[in-house]
This record gives sequence, C-alpha cells and structure tokens, in this order.
Amino acid sequence: MKLSRLGEFGLIERVRRAVPTNRNVRLGIGDDAAWMRTKTDSFLVTADLLLEGVHFDLNWTSLFDLGYKTLAVNLSDIAAMGGIPAYLILSLGVPDDFQTDQIDDFYKGISSLASENNVTLVGGDTSVADTLLISACLIGHAPYRPISRSGAKIKNDIYVTGTLGDSALALQLLKNKSLRQAKGDASYLLSRHHKPTARLAAGALLGREHLATAMIDVSDGLLQDLGHICKASAVGAYIWEDKLPLSHAYRALAGKHGTRYAMAGGEDYELLFCARPSDRKRIDKLQKRAQVPLTRIGTCVPACEGITVLDRSGSLIALPTSGHDHFKKP
Amino acid sequence: MKLSRLGEFGLIERVRRAVPTNRNVRLGIGDDAAWMRTKTDSFLVTADLLLEGVHFDLNWTSLFDLGYKTLAVNLSDIAAMGGIPAYLILSLGVPDDFQTDQIDDFYKGISSLASENNVTLVGGDTSVADTLLISACLIGHAPYRPISRSGAKIKNDIYVTGTLGDSALALQLLKNKSLRQAKGDASYLLSRHHKPTARLAAGALLGREHLATAMIDVSDGLLQDLGHICKASAVGAYIWEDKLPLSHAYRALAGKHGTRYAMAGGEDYELLFCARPSDRKRIDKLQKRAQVPLTRIGTCVPACEGITVLDRSGSLIALPTSGHDHFKKP
Repeated sequence: MKLSRLGEFGLIERVRRAVPTNRNVRLGIGDDAAWMRTKTDSFLVTADLLLEGVHFDLNWTSLFDLGYKTLAVNLSDIAAMGGIPAYLILSLGVPDDFQTDQIDDFYKGISSLASENNVTLVGGDTSVADTLLISACLIGHAPYRPISRSGAKIKNDIYVTGTLGDSALALQLLKNKSLRQAKGDASYLLSRHHKPTARLAAGALLGREHLATAMIDVSDGLLQDLGHICKASAVGAYIWEDKLPLSHAYRALAGKHGTRYAMAGGEDYELLFCARPSDRKRIDKLQKRAQVPLTRIGTCVPACEGITVLDRSGSLIALPTSGHDHFKKP
Repeated sequence: MKLSRLGEFGLIERVRRAVPTNRNVRLGIGDDAAWMRTKTDSFLVTADLLLEGVHFDLNWTSLFDLGYKTLAVNLSDIAAMGGIPAYLILSLGVPDDFQTDQIDDFYKGISSLASENNVTLVGGDTSVADTLLISACLIGHAPYRPISRSGAKIKNDIYVTGTLGDSALALQLLKNKSLRQAKGDASYLLSRHHKPTARLAAGALLGREHLATAMIDVSDGLLQDLGHICKASAVGAYIWEDKLPLSHAYRALAGKHGTRYAMAGGEDYELLFCARPSDRKRIDKLQKRAQVPLTRIGTCVPACEGITVLDRSGSLIALPTSGHDHFKKP
C-alpha cells in the first residue's frame, strides 16, 4: 500500500504496533510527548519535523520567526502534558548557498524564546540539504503526573485556552495575498501565526492541581485534535459553536469563513482539555495565574455519538473537512 | 558569508557560542553526546541527521540496513561517552510514493538492533518529503562520569577498537562498481559498511573503570576525529601507520589505496581513546570483556607538534586529505 493511502495517522499507528515496549516508558508513541519514568527520574520528550515547502514558506516567514516557532510548537507539546521544558536538540539541513547571517537570525529566534523559558540548546546535527529542514527534539521535566489524551470521561466539560482560528485565518489571508498591509487586526493575526504562545503556565497549573482529565495542544485543528482525545478516551463530544473563543481580529476578518478556521484551522497551539464539572470554580479561578482565558466550549458524551457541533439554536451543523494529513491527498 | 565557506564545523562553533549555557548541562554542543546532570538524574543525548543523496543512496542500501545503521551510528555516539543507550526518538520525512512495506523494512532494521540493546522507540514525527530523510535522537543513561574529548594528556597512549577503513573501502568499491559480486572479503567489507557495530561494551567498561582520558567515535575518519580530541585536549599526536588495525579483507582489497581509508575514510564507528601508559595492562585485560581488540596506535605529544603519521622506519608520511565536511566544496 502506498503511504499516500495509509496516511500520517495510519503510519504512526503502524509504527506504534511494531515497536517493543519498555516498562520505564509510561507513555510512548501517540501522545503529545512521550513520558519516561524510572526510579530516579521522570521526563518528557517531544519531536517536530519542519520542512520548507511542507510546513513553512520562506516567502512569508522570516528566519527569526521560524526559529521562534520551531521552539514554540515543541514547548506547546510539553505544555500539553503539564510539563516543564528544559533541553532542546536541534538538527538542521541547510542549502549551501544560505548566508551565515540567515542562520544567525534563525538561532536568535530560538534563543529569544529559549531564554524566556529556561530552555538550553544542548546538541544536534547539521548537514547540507536541498531545502531547509528543521528537526527539533525537546526534553522536559515532569514534576507531576503528565496529562495524557486518554483520561476524559462522559459528562466531563471541554475547555480551550485563548482563542481559536487566528493562525489559520492569517495563513489563508497570506496565501490569498490579502494581507499585504499588515496593520491592526491583520497584524494581530499574523503575529499569532508566526509567534504562537505555548500555554506552559496553564498546562503546568492544570497538571499540578490535577484538574485536567485529558489534554492535547491544538496543532491540527480543534476538531481533529478533539478527535484524538475522543479516540484515546473512548468518548464522544458536543461542541457549542457560539462558545468558541474568537479574537476581535478573527471576527473582523473571517467574513464568509465564519468559525471554519476556529474549528478546523490548525496551528493554534492552544490547550484543549477535559475536566470534571465539579471543578468549574477551581478552573475559573485558575485563569488569572495561567494568564490566559479558559473557555468551556462543550461536553463529553458517549463514544457512539461521535463529535457533534451544535449552533446557537441547538441544531447540528455540518462539520468542515477537518484537519490536516501530510500524506493523504485531497 | 556563505555556509559553503564557513563549513560544518564553523557552523557548529558559531551555534555553540550563540546559545546560553545552563549549569545542569555538564557537556553541551561539541562532544559525541550532550550530558545533562541534575540532583536526581544524569543522562546523555545525541542526534543524527541522515539525508538521501547526502548520507545514503537507496541504490546500494536496503531500507532494513538503513534502519539498522540509523540506530547503530547513534548507539556509537553513546558508546563514545561510556553511556548506556535507552530511548530513541525518530522523525521521518518520506516521499508519498513509498510503499508501506518499505517503511516496515526500515522499522524492522531499527527494531532488530533496538531489542538487542534494550532501546525503546518512544516518539518522533512524520511528514511527506521529496526525498527520504531521517532524524534520530537517542537518550542514554550515564551511570559513570561520561568521557569527553578533552581529557587527553601529553604522553597518553592512543588506542582504537576493532579495525579501520573497512566501511570506506566498501563504499569506494561500491561507487566504482567493482563490488557487484559480494563474496568473501568484499562481503565482509560491505557488512561493515551497512551494519557497523557500536562498541557499547568497550565504551561502558572504559567509563566504569576510568581508563579512558578522552574518547570519540570514528565517524568522519581517524585523523579528523583524532583532530577533535587533540583540539579539545590541547595536545598533538603521533600515529604509527604500521600499527593501524586492518582487517584481512581490507588488506586483500585495498591495493594501491594502502592505509588511506584507514586513516581518513570515515564511518568506522570504532572508538578512539587515550589512556595513561601506566594502565596498559588493565587495558589489555579489558579486551576480552569488551569483545573487541583494543590496539595501541600512537601517543599524545605537545600541541605544537600537531598530528603526525610515522611509517615503519619512523619517517613522516604525507597525510591524506582528511575527513568530510558537508558544507565545504572540494
């Protein structure tokens, strides 16, 4: 079978089944990060591959922003486990006509975010390549039990941090060349696309206070990532469209797209988590310390109901084609 | 400046200087693996990037062998620190016309070596790509103080495990198409090229018994990797050409190339280490447990003497163009 038929998630599942297990690996392939725990240590590892032409386009991304985002997306995976990031390993394939100051800009983007978060670049590999490729691996500490995708229960509330859809709408506007003048709302959306904020404080607080029963970061789009939680936890979900947190800029510029990018856009790097209804007050209180709004957007239902989005009147709405798979062709 | 002028090692040095340090990082960029140590844990991390067309050619490498070698080269880096390998993180970029059984073969190659060495694949990332790309990151334990490149002293002996040049000679014969019938000696050289043996037992024993003052694995060629030890330790070296350990197959097939590939070939994945002359007997005794010959090939001298290769009569011999730099053009 060709990979284009199997798809990215089929490949991951195939690999997961093929590899041997180890009792020190508490969570292996199939969560935001792997969790290893031995008598003496407990740590998280996550990895991301970013390829020119697949994940980014140097026509509309500066190397500084690319460095920043490389670290940000990995920080987000550690945040989604409730962990504390620590060590970055970075391998780069670079075309040989690149200038050294381009590479310097890339590392400046990495460093600016790394020093904010006490992350140290400890190693990696470099090679010449036809197009720029970035492979990052981030190791984090797990002071509390990491939050997997699999603990959601029926009747749990579903929450999301921040706002949804900003990044994907920015990308859409960039692709349509309707964002040449990046001012005001457009500038805000662009910054959300180029410099996503990993919700580390929120993730760590939810982990420390045992408030999230399941958690994931929204990288492939709300509905697709919610699907990962639902599959791992064996639940379904109702999502209320009118509760989706949208930024002022999104509302101003989404136009006919409505909530489409908020539901299925991708690259939000917000945290999506489930929690017990009895913890609502504690979660409300946590918002200040987490420095980000936490919005209740739905509820978990039996798995047989699947994922349903309801509009303001309670009617089912058709789901947009959800998420992204690198291998599958449209 | 273009990267092609700066070169790979120039780039690494530039990155090393640019990144902030952290007191938990005992060894950062610039050794075979990074070493992190906190109150509770002590671990090693190494990374390798393998790109189709740069590091391997699918015309003469099977996907099984490629998987095997991907893990082997990372095991070798952990061996060179005296560590114990544990967790593998593997990111893959795969052309979308690849067949799933090709990917299965690749993972079988990984798994066969992983299970021998108690290594668990814990995560990674996947993406579609134009050509196959493999980015591996291996985490290991450091039960004893890791052996860096920087502890060699003047008058230390210089040793190498196993034999040198087999892999590079095999590659040369493959490129010249003079290895179509892989029998006998040729078959031996090919197996050394496709399935290098990481010297984990030797590395761990040298670490445990504090016998090596400096160590590195020979991936870029003996003289280049010896150069890394000399630079980090501020010493020079004499190497005796007639002491270089050569396999029967190498002697049979090297012909006019003589010791060229043993000195500057690359991809040997043998351990090169320095030791005190007073420890010669202990090192001799260690060979059995290490399950590999340990050959004394030279001695450390003052840095101002640089690296010198002497022939049987004690005359200086001209050094072959040494090693490999991905960015620099010949």
